[in-house]
Amino acid sequence: SCFLALGISVPDPRKREELIKLEASMRIGGHLRLSPEEQQVDAQLRKLMQEEMARTDFPPALHFFKARPLIRRSPIYSLLQKMPKGAALHVHDFAMVDVEWLVRNVTYRSHCYMCFTDNHSVRFSFSSGLPKPRLNCSAWTLLEQLRAQTVNVTDLDNGIMSKLTLWTEEDPEIVYPSQDVVWERFEQAFLATFGLVTYAPVFKDYVREGLSQFYRDNVMYVEVRALLPETYELDGSTNSKEWTVKTFQETTRQFVEEHPDFFGARVIATFHRGANVSLVTLAVQEAMKLQAEFPETMAGFDLVGREDTGSPLWLFREALSLPAAQGFNLPYFFHAGETDHEGTEVDQNMLDALLFNTSRIGHGFALLRHPLAKKLSRMNGVAIEVCPISNQVLKLVKDLRNHPAAVLMSEGHPLVISSDDPSMFGASGLSDDFYEAFVGFGGLGNNLGSLKELAMNSIRYSSLPPNLQEKCMSMWQTKWNSFVTENLQGTQAEL
Amino acid sequence: SCFLALGISVPDPRKREELIKLEASMRIGGHLRLSPEEQQVDAQLRKLMQEEMARTDFPPALHFFKARPLIRRSPIYSLLQKMPKGAALHVHDFAMVDVEWLVRNVTYRSHCYMCFTDNHSVRFSFSSGLPKPRLNCSAWTLLEQLRAQTVNVTDLDNGIMSKLTLWTEEDPEIVYPSQDVVWERFEQAFLATFGLVTYAPVFKDYVREGLSQFYRDNVMYVEVRALLPETYELDGSTNSKEWTVKTFQETTRQFVEEHPDFFGARVIATFHRGANVSLVTLAVQEAMKLQAEFPETMAGFDLVGREDTGSPLWLFREALSLPAAQGFNLPYFFHAGETDHEGTEVDQNMLDALLFNTSRIGHGFALLRHPLAKKLSRMNGVAIEVCPISNQVLKLVKDLRNHPAAVLMSEGHPLVISSDDPSMFGASGLSDDFYEAFVGFGGLGNNLGSLKELAMNSIRYSSLPPNLQEKCMSMWQTKWNSFVTENLQGTQAEL
Ligand SMILES: [Zn+2]
Ligand SMILES: [Zn+2]
Repeated sequence: SCFLALGISVPDPRKREELIKLEASMRIGGHLRLSPEEQQVDAQLRKLMQEEMARTDFPPALHFFKARPLIRRSPIYSLLQKMPKGAALHVHDFAMVDVEWLVRNVTYRSHCYMCFTDNHSVRFSFSSGLPKPRLNCSAWTLLEQLRAQTVNVTDLDNGIMSKLTLWTEEDPEIVYPSQDVVWERFEQAFLATFGLVTYAPVFKDYVREGLSQFYRDNVMYVEVRALLPETYELDGSTNSKEWTVKTFQETTRQFVEEHPDFFGARVIATFHRGANVSLVTLAVQEAMKLQAEFPETMAGFDLVGREDTGSPLWLFREALSLPAAQGFNLPYFFHAGETDHEGTEVDQNMLDALLFNTSRIGHGFALLRHPLAKKLSRMNGVAIEVCPISNQVLKLVKDLRNHPAAVLMSEGHPLVISSDDPSMFGASGLSDDFYEAFVGFGGLGNNLGSLKELAMNSIRYSSLPPNLQEKCMSMWQTKWNSFVTENLQGTQAEL
Repeated sequence: SCFLALGISVPDPRKREELIKLEASMRIGGHLRLSPEEQQVDAQLRKLMQEEMARTDFPPALHFFKARPLIRRSPIYSLLQKMPKGAALHVHDFAMVDVEWLVRNVTYRSHCYMCFTDNHSVRFSFSSGLPKPRLNCSAWTLLEQLRAQTVNVTDLDNGIMSKLTLWTEEDPEIVYPSQDVVWERFEQAFLATFGLVTYAPVFKDYVREGLSQFYRDNVMYVEVRALLPETYELDGSTNSKEWTVKTFQETTRQFVEEHPDFFGARVIATFHRGANVSLVTLAVQEAMKLQAEFPETMAGFDLVGREDTGSPLWLFREALSLPAAQGFNLPYFFHAGETDHEGTEVDQNMLDALLFNTSRIGHGFALLRHPLAKKLSRMNGVAIEVCPISNQVLKLVKDLRNHPAAVLMSEGHPLVISSDDPSMFGASGLSDDFYEAFVGFGGLGNNLGSLKELAMNSIRYSSLPPNLQEKCMSMWQTKWNSFVTENLQGTQAEL
């Protein structure tokens, strides 16, 4: 009997308190000892959680597009915004900056052309003259001229904005009835963004604005999954991938100089999993080159794009074995298990990611259904990057209380919370996803310790080498202490 | 490193096949060796599963009310219907028999009165004269007379039928927008059924028809959660609970005599968890009395009704400790964890059920979020009674692939599949729920072994004493062998 192992010969109700405590200690943050100050903030948080759970319109049960206004008014959200959340470890370039900035800032720059695609999306190009015609797209129109001829420019701008994000005020269940539809719209929005962000002068500003938005949300370090595209200039000439990494590196350094309490950013080079084996082989080789050239900025390599329609990792086994075969260390950070098709080839991606020694697993939504992969991930400290809002918007789960990470949190599995593509989902920084994770994945089971451990995990499972991790953690600890003290003063002021 | 424990010093892609096999062996039925005949049926099944998973309208992802026509046309469903499924261990009296039988048979009997409640439900009473007026209900009308005056009797009968079930042809998301609404309608449908089924002559026929419907669905043994109400006669006189148990016992014996390949049925006495402590105490005492008087028929005791609005088990701790304190063995079969409110008092029901030595856990939907309770359930062989369609209709989960039992199955957790209240959900016997479990909880990960183990589990985790379990299992094995042979012939005939 398992009760026997717990020192009880038969089930014994007198052991109840002890067992409840034992179970609570298993969950994320459950083993942390909170200081008296932290306990006071925690008591306040518990009251807020009780109010939150008594709501009939419980936000984590709703689609984020409906829940957002409720979340943003929640006092728990305000607290989470102020909280130093550590690092964002799973965020994609081109979905880091809110679309309002893209439209109000970027599309208002000179020489910005737009065309309408046959499938109701748009494309952009900055060009000194008229860009050459694009397949399946209308004639190019200079936005400056279009706006001059338009009566209601706000409507026009809102229309453009809606092409750059999945966010909608309409009923998302109706607009996006299936995974196929939502992924198609998702990819179109990426393509629309592409022409804006790969314009070299915009790229610099974009990176800076991305860091800035995370910084304002009290995130101190970011690892960006980046396609590292070539950028282009007004005359149509292009800059290499090296230019892109270098620009990312320099922009980050400057941002850190101006914001000494921001720790920095690194890049995980990504490539599309829909590509064929020879292209992926080239991409791996290119990533090795960049890794060697920019060891401080480059964190490693990943494959991106919809898993269900892409090739399984196993198809790329030779390409992925190249670095190890050459004795070269190219860390992997594979997206894997972002699927609900059980037992398919793609469903083995998590095990394969582990076999290729992945440093973390992006999403791992299907991990629970793979007890061995789960065990390997836990024992080897391969953290799962959980992106709750992304999984909900991309229709893997409806009520976030049923998200598998609720289970992973209850078991103290190594995991971090991230936001994947915040601009695509109408989310901002990490706070919306932290809200969903904190309130939705555990409810009253969570406490301040859960949040503390989530933040610490984001540094512990980052790609930073030990000495930098230590430095980052100590910077975070200082921030955390201030956060606790400030909210303690808040509690006392209310008395 | 966990890889080390598996005999690999570093993650090694060459171990892939071995690891995939190891993981597959962990799942339910994964350790079973299939005979060459079973393997042939399994190959056929695998093809069907591949076709099923390629559908864009994948039934387990849809609400059962929308999925049912698709399921009923699926060749997997036909196979599951023919398959000897063993026992139904979680079914409630008053929701065992399809509502068509209730309307076409029961409400057409003489002396059947009906009234309309203020909240759009109905109540029934059989009576030699006009029943006395009922609070919050219209005047009683004799159905025989009402039908004689009605032009479209089919419409009337369909209207009555709709009051006895949650099943609807309309969009269930709109008709039942929240758990509160669906539970309210659920309870009203029970109350409407109550007056029909507690009429003594109907009760006998109802039990018989219930057994018969499960028998026709190739279920050989049933454990019925029964309120064991007093029944009434035409003159308003009532029969005791003892009469009810005795009638159940005699009806079952006769059914077994007429159907020697049916194994039988037992009763788990149930009481409403919304009641106060003194009523629950009386109910426990009454259950002990019945258990002593009808040891062959009575299996034990349970508390029923919506957990979120009922009292936590812990409130009844003294009442539930009574039998053990008196050295009396009253087995428990508690509903627990049928909730998505995490960290509440009610959310501890699973641990409390285990502390009170429950024999099985009804639903355990929240079990995954309680790693210690889960461990205790596994180590002590306390099986989870999984009722997929019930959990979906009562709005705990939308896409059944996200049901926690998908994880429990992948880990080989002790569990059985049951149908809870098939008539309320428009389901029939066990086959609909077996379809959802087999296709939804594992997809291509499942095989014939999964089904075999699910069926065997239903006998292994029944309340039957060892000698009867053995007898039941050997009867089932014979049925299983025929099933395999017949479907083997089917395969060969197709060649
Ligand atoms: Zn991603
Ligand atoms: Zn039930």
